[in-house]
Amino acid sequence: MASTGSDSDHVYKVIELVGTSETSVDDAIKSAISRASKTLKHLRWFEAIQTRGHIENGQIGHYQVTLKVGFTLE
Amino acid sequence: MASTGSDSDHVYKVIELVGTSETSVDDAIKSAISRASKTLKHLRWFEAIQTRGHIENGQIGHYQVTLKVGFTLE
Amino acid sequence: MASTGSDSDHVYKVIELVGTSETSVDDAIKSAISRASKTLKHLRWFEAIQTRGHIENGQIGHYQVTLKVGFTLE
Amino acid sequence: MASTGSDSDHVYKVIELVGTSETSVDDAIKSAISRASKTLKHLRWFEAIQTRGHIENGQIGHYQVTLKVGFTLE
Amino acid sequence: MASTGSDSDHVYKVIELVGTSETSVDDAIKSAISRASKTLKHLRWFEAIQTRGHIENGQIGHYQVTLKVGFTLE
Amino acid sequence: MASTGSDSDHVYKVIELVGTSETSVDDAIKSAISRASKTLKHLRWFEAIQTRGHIENGQIGHYQVTLKVGFTLE
Amino acid sequence: MASTGSDSDHVYKVIELVGTSETSVDDAIKSAISRASKTLKHLRWFEAIQTRGHIENGQIGHYQVTLKVGFTLE
Amino acid sequence: MASTGSDSDHVYKVIELVGTSETSVDDAIKSAISRASKTLKHLRWFEAIQTRGHIENGQIGHYQVTLKVGFTLE
Amino acid sequence: MASTGSDSDHVYKVIELVGTSETSVDDAIKSAISRASKTLKHLRWFEAIQTRGHIENGQIGHYQVTLKVGFTLE
Amino acid sequence: MASTGSDSDHVYKVIELVGTSETSVDDAIKSAISRASKTLKHLRWFEAIQTRGHIENGQIGHYQVTLKVGFTLE
Amino acid sequence: MASTGSDSDHVYKVIELVGTSETSVDDAIKSAISRASKTLKHLRWFEAIQTRGHIENGQIGHYQVTLKVGFTLE
Amino acid sequence: MASTGSDSDHVYKVIELVGTSETSVDDAIKSAISRASKTLKHLRWFEAIQTRGHIENGQIGHYQVTLKVGFTLE
Repeated sequence: MASTGSDSDHVYKVIELVGTSETSVDDAIKSAISRASKTLKHLRWFEAIQTRGHIENGQIGHYQVTLKVGFTLE
Repeated sequence: MASTGSDSDHVYKVIELVGTSETSVDDAIKSAISRASKTLKHLRWFEAIQTRGHIENGQIGHYQVTLKVGFTLE
Repeated sequence: MASTGSDSDHVYKVIELVGTSETSVDDAIKSAISRASKTLKHLRWFEAIQTRGHIENGQIGHYQVTLKVGFTLE
Repeated sequence: MASTGSDSDHVYKVIELVGTSETSVDDAIKSAISRASKTLKHLRWFEAIQTRGHIENGQIGHYQVTLKVGFTLE
Repeated sequence: MASTGSDSDHVYKVIELVGTSETSVDDAIKSAISRASKTLKHLRWFEAIQTRGHIENGQIGHYQVTLKVGFTLE
Repeated sequence: MASTGSDSDHVYKVIELVGTSETSVDDAIKSAISRASKTLKHLRWFEAIQTRGHIENGQIGHYQVTLKVGFTLE
Repeated sequence: MASTGSDSDHVYKVIELVGTSETSVDDAIKSAISRASKTLKHLRWFEAIQTRGHIENGQIGHYQVTLKVGFTLE
Repeated sequence: MASTGSDSDHVYKVIELVGTSETSVDDAIKSAISRASKTLKHLRWFEAIQTRGHIENGQIGHYQVTLKVGFTLE
Repeated sequence: MASTGSDSDHVYKVIELVGTSETSVDDAIKSAISRASKTLKHLRWFEAIQTRGHIENGQIGHYQVTLKVGFTLE
Repeated sequence: MASTGSDSDHVYKVIELVGTSETSVDDAIKSAISRASKTLKHLRWFEAIQTRGHIENGQIGHYQVTLKVGFTLE
Repeated sequence: MASTGSDSDHVYKVIELVGTSETSVDDAIKSAISRASKTLKHLRWFEAIQTRGHIENGQIGHYQVTLKVGFTLE
Repeated sequence: MASTGSDSDHVYKVIELVGTSETSVDDAIKSAISRASKTLKHLRWFEAIQTRGHIENGQIGHYQVTLKVGFTLE
């Protein structure tokens, strides 16, 4: 939310990901961040913009959280 | 988020529910799904569209999460 | 707007209604609440989400107010 | 869009449906209206609020259109 | 909200007006409709999209309601 | 969506129209553009901002599509 | 809605209040403005951003209107 | 933002314009206001609702700012 | 709209495309999906978020539909 | 979500806070409520309006949840 | 936009201000930040959420920019 | 805003970037466009969707403008 003081000349790219988890909303967020960090360096922040889920047999099968993820372009 | 491949001729109905919990946001979501599954078959997905809560004595008394819930019309 | 302190284990359903009135916006809201109370017990709150109206001969013929109405599921 | 002149004392209910079609957006809208008319009399208007679809093998498998549908409460 | 059954081949224009009143929200709506009807025939519907007001000496000086107003193009 | 390269000193006006059609969404868009072109020169682009329709006897009576239409002011 | 011509060097603060009334939407707006004027000088404008209410025994118990209220910082 | 105290019985019309400029966002706003003032008296306020631009050869060719512009109806 | 039951441990990426067509809205959607499938495997769903078009000589020159397109990250 | 039955003559103020936590979304909400209760009596409800976070070394460093918090004005 | 790495246990408050300037949009932003810094320490970030202005004699009299401003609660 | 007449069979991709500048909003926009043009050919248009900034010692440290940027897919 607050801005860093040291990167005033950077340009960031923002991508949109959907993380999934059978466990919780927080875990779905983590799954997307974890996946993104495998191929992208310099991840800086995320924003959760949608929380959905799949229902199976009257129970939540898995959560699906859509994130905006920002990272520094080198 | 992703669509199923097999139900291209179905019509779904979407209802709006508010689940509550003294424990957590996730638990409030589960309480609404659990209640809906008592009277509706074929629940398919949900979307959490609002997270609110009641404050008592300076602490969260209970969480209130508003959900859209979709189910197949037979 | 404020939450009740006593109903932390309830699930609510939210429906959408359009009330109409030849008289006023407030009266259109009342007409929808009045109609809903005929068939639904435990109405708890409403939110007015759209105010429209019909114009006849250069004057307002009737107001149409769309409401979300929440009630307790037993 | 335009209001009828004759029903100033009515109350309407608005429900949310998702129609699907393998053919087109318009056909998905029709499938939802057609299904609704089997169980509800006095359907009056709809609004399409979301257009989505499922992709299979690089092509559109089916369209999914979310509608608000309004009908007169008797 | 409901559509008329008879005007399927019409095109409507929608304009935006701000009505003001020292008295009430409803009266501000009426002032805008009344002014529009002086120069436009075939006004059909309105939607109130914003309600504001001016405060003078700690009291409401006047209400300002922004409306979309639709009319038939001949 | 993309901007033209040659009109950097132009001012555009944007108006709002509702086109109707008994046939399809696309045809409702065309009806509004066609009507606008009778009285306005230099129409440049449109955006469809709402798709609604009227239901008669359980079937779509006509589609109503609200458009923003932009044109060059001379 | 219109701007004053004389205060081009002012800074305003905007706060959010919820006024309540058993009587009407307009009265709920007035209750919030009246309360704000007890402790804040130089109130200048308001915008009503949400209209809700509490339902008791099938009737409106009280209206709750959320306002943005702007005032001049000295 | 602040309301004038003296025009409580006026009705305003709000139109939408797109101003363009090769120089800056502020200049695009000015170009639209300047063009509007050629044919409309009593312009009162504007709101910038969208800022876009055209890119040519990897640089901004011109800015395009969409404005709502309000003026007094006499 | 409905979620698949089998991919609870996947992460999806969502990209934004604009498809164009001289023919229809549906065809503009197809052109974007077709182009995306040339370079991306595992496309799963789309959502149409904006429908615009270019007007030439008073007629629609081409439609431009902005899509969100989701695909599985391997 | 539901309104209390007993406070129809109250005025509430709504403030915006951002709570942070290294642990979870729920904990970030609690941190903001806890901080607010140190200086404000009569906190009544909250709404979570944005969920963001900071990423450090490819993992979530801390969550940042923006809340609206309502309390009774005495 | 990016988050600081060192303040994971802070709570921020967000207030809404309107800065004005006869000169430019950027200057109106600066006027609000400058005013806020007179009475608030630890200002951290802002977001411009609305750009409006007053028109006098066919020219921009002053700009009015509404800002959210975040600061650390000690 | 206006569409080009010659590219009716193109597909565009839209990406999201955040440009930063210590100087001005316009300069932050330019920094993002300049960075994008280093690796992407055929940039066509942008839309500024959010303007934020970092505050240091009571003054604006740098501006951060989030852009959607569209370019032609070959």
